[in-house]
Amino acid sequence: MYVWMNRVVGARLVDAIPCDPGWLVPAEEAAASPFDRGLLLGDGLFETILVRHGLAPLLPFHEERLAEGCRLLGYPPPPALGGVLEALISHGGLREGVIRVTCTRGEGPRGYRPPEVPDPFCVAALLPPSSAPEAPWRAVVSDVPTVPHPILSRIKHTSALARIVALREAEGRDADEVLFCTPAGAVVEGTATNIFWVTEGALHTPAVEATGCLPGVGRRWVIEWAENAGVRVHQGVFPLAVAGEADEAFLTNAVRGPIPLGEVVGHRRWEAPGPLTARLMAAWRDMADRSGPP
Amino acid sequence: MYVWMNRVVGARLVDAIPCDPGWLVPAEEAAASPFDRGLLLGDGLFETILVRHGLAPLLPFHEERLAEGCRLLGYPPPPALGGVLEALISHGGLREGVIRVTCTRGEGPRGYRPPEVPDPFCVAALLPPSSAPEAPWRAVVSDVPTVPHPILSRIKHTSALARIVALREAEGRDADEVLFCTPAGAVVEGTATNIFWVTEGALHTPAVEATGCLPGVGRRWVIEWAENAGVRVHQGVFPLAVAGEADEAFLTNAVRGPIPLGEVVGHRRWEAPGPLTARLMAAWRDMADRSGPP
Repeated sequence: MYVWMNRVVGARLVDAIPCDPGWLVPAEEAAASPFDRGLLLGDGLFETILVRHGLAPLLPFHEERLAEGCRLLGYPPPPALGGVLEALISHGGLREGVIRVTCTRGEGPRGYRPPEVPDPFCVAALLPPSSAPEAPWRAVVSDVPTVPHPILSRIKHTSALARIVALREAEGRDADEVLFCTPAGAVVEGTATNIFWVTEGALHTPAVEATGCLPGVGRRWVIEWAENAGVRVHQGVFPLAVAGEADEAFLTNAVRGPIPLGEVVGHRRWEAPGPLTARLMAAWRDMADRSGPP
Repeated sequence: MYVWMNRVVGARLVDAIPCDPGWLVPAEEAAASPFDRGLLLGDGLFETILVRHGLAPLLPFHEERLAEGCRLLGYPPPPALGGVLEALISHGGLREGVIRVTCTRGEGPRGYRPPEVPDPFCVAALLPPSSAPEAPWRAVVSDVPTVPHPILSRIKHTSALARIVALREAEGRDADEVLFCTPAGAVVEGTATNIFWVTEGALHTPAVEATGCLPGVGRRWVIEWAENAGVRVHQGVFPLAVAGEADEAFLTNAVRGPIPLGEVVGHRRWEAPGPLTARLMAAWRDMADRSGPP
């Protein structure tokens, strides 16, 4: 297995293969700098990209979000992900899986203050696919509120310890996901998912700017699908109770697509997947399959 | 220069020196895994430790906080920092400086959910000293509120992008530091400092649990100094206006000690350092110097 990197780190490496736009490095020799700000300070961005039949159908969405993240954090423009994917797929032996791309600000002087001229480090690996969600998910609601952040809420960044801690605490409660709310009690998102629910035939989901939810790639796909299918989508600020009154609910993720939500613990259970969720799951499978050779 | 690591990463390394409790690796050969959760997800802890005359006078405070962080995040107990410092100082050529220790959860499966059994990665380097603060600092107040977190507020973690973004935005305003407040407007802390002010001869500082400020090592030293010196310390929930009415103010940091605060932009200017700040700065220098050989 090879790992893609925008530059080779490590003094004694000899087996790297040059590729456009970087290098392929044998996984067992791939190294990062222990002084990289991604490692020291969470100063990084990432994308996890679905690969089906050797193609990445949602690549443009990921590229757009990563470019916006680089712009907002003051990183140089991101690598051309098309070239990264092509290099990994042609050397990885996997045609079904997930590519994780991580871009950091690179090394810098000690302290939080970023260097004026970043020297970014980017690394990507092609990994086995996620297991398909077999049963509807159970979500718990976090006790810790999240506040919308004008930059961090809009980017998929590597300073993710709040999500890790929330999931770790949810383990004891047999939950698949943790839902966050604002201090005012508006639903925001899960740790790695956005949330949707269906009321009177229309989709509802938290609004990005007003709630601080991540503009997820799965979320965007659902919204564009609904526009094409003539299903209304309401993006807004909704208390959890509003979601609890819905007819059905699901989560979205760029790799898994729509995931039926069977329960928000302490609030509501649903028969899942509901009919619109099932339609969306089928449409997602079609999208993934259509991306490949006919 | 050598870097201390709890284990050697990188396939072809041959020049590492074993030491208790790990390895010393030539800096130019030191490598981290590109799949480390510290790099991928900010799943890490750190300490920056003052070294004077080849000794680390505040080491016990750092060890205590790092151990608490490991416990709260579910990492195994931290390395014995005394051995780390000894190894670095005896091979680093620097007897005045700063040691940055970073401990992460190590590698794990893809996703936020941490592995059941972490395999932590720890790395430390001895770096040149911080420049002494020459002039009183100017602080700006962040527009983005921070919410106390039951775990993250108590630990010095590597998911620091909110601090980086705040400092980056403060650069255009010619500020040295950014102050955070809670959604209710209570003063919390700076990006890398705690805040104190003096009213009626007593020190005031935000309370750790109620405001979510970091239990800083410099903060702790000031509080213990004040207790010994018979100076009262009030820890509480204070609106920024209360701090603005104070006679003098300063920031604290584990490496720089007390830093005179000359201005909170838009709120207040002070003649700085005030008399109690100056006393504390002298006491800090004494502490640092006393730590070394007589």
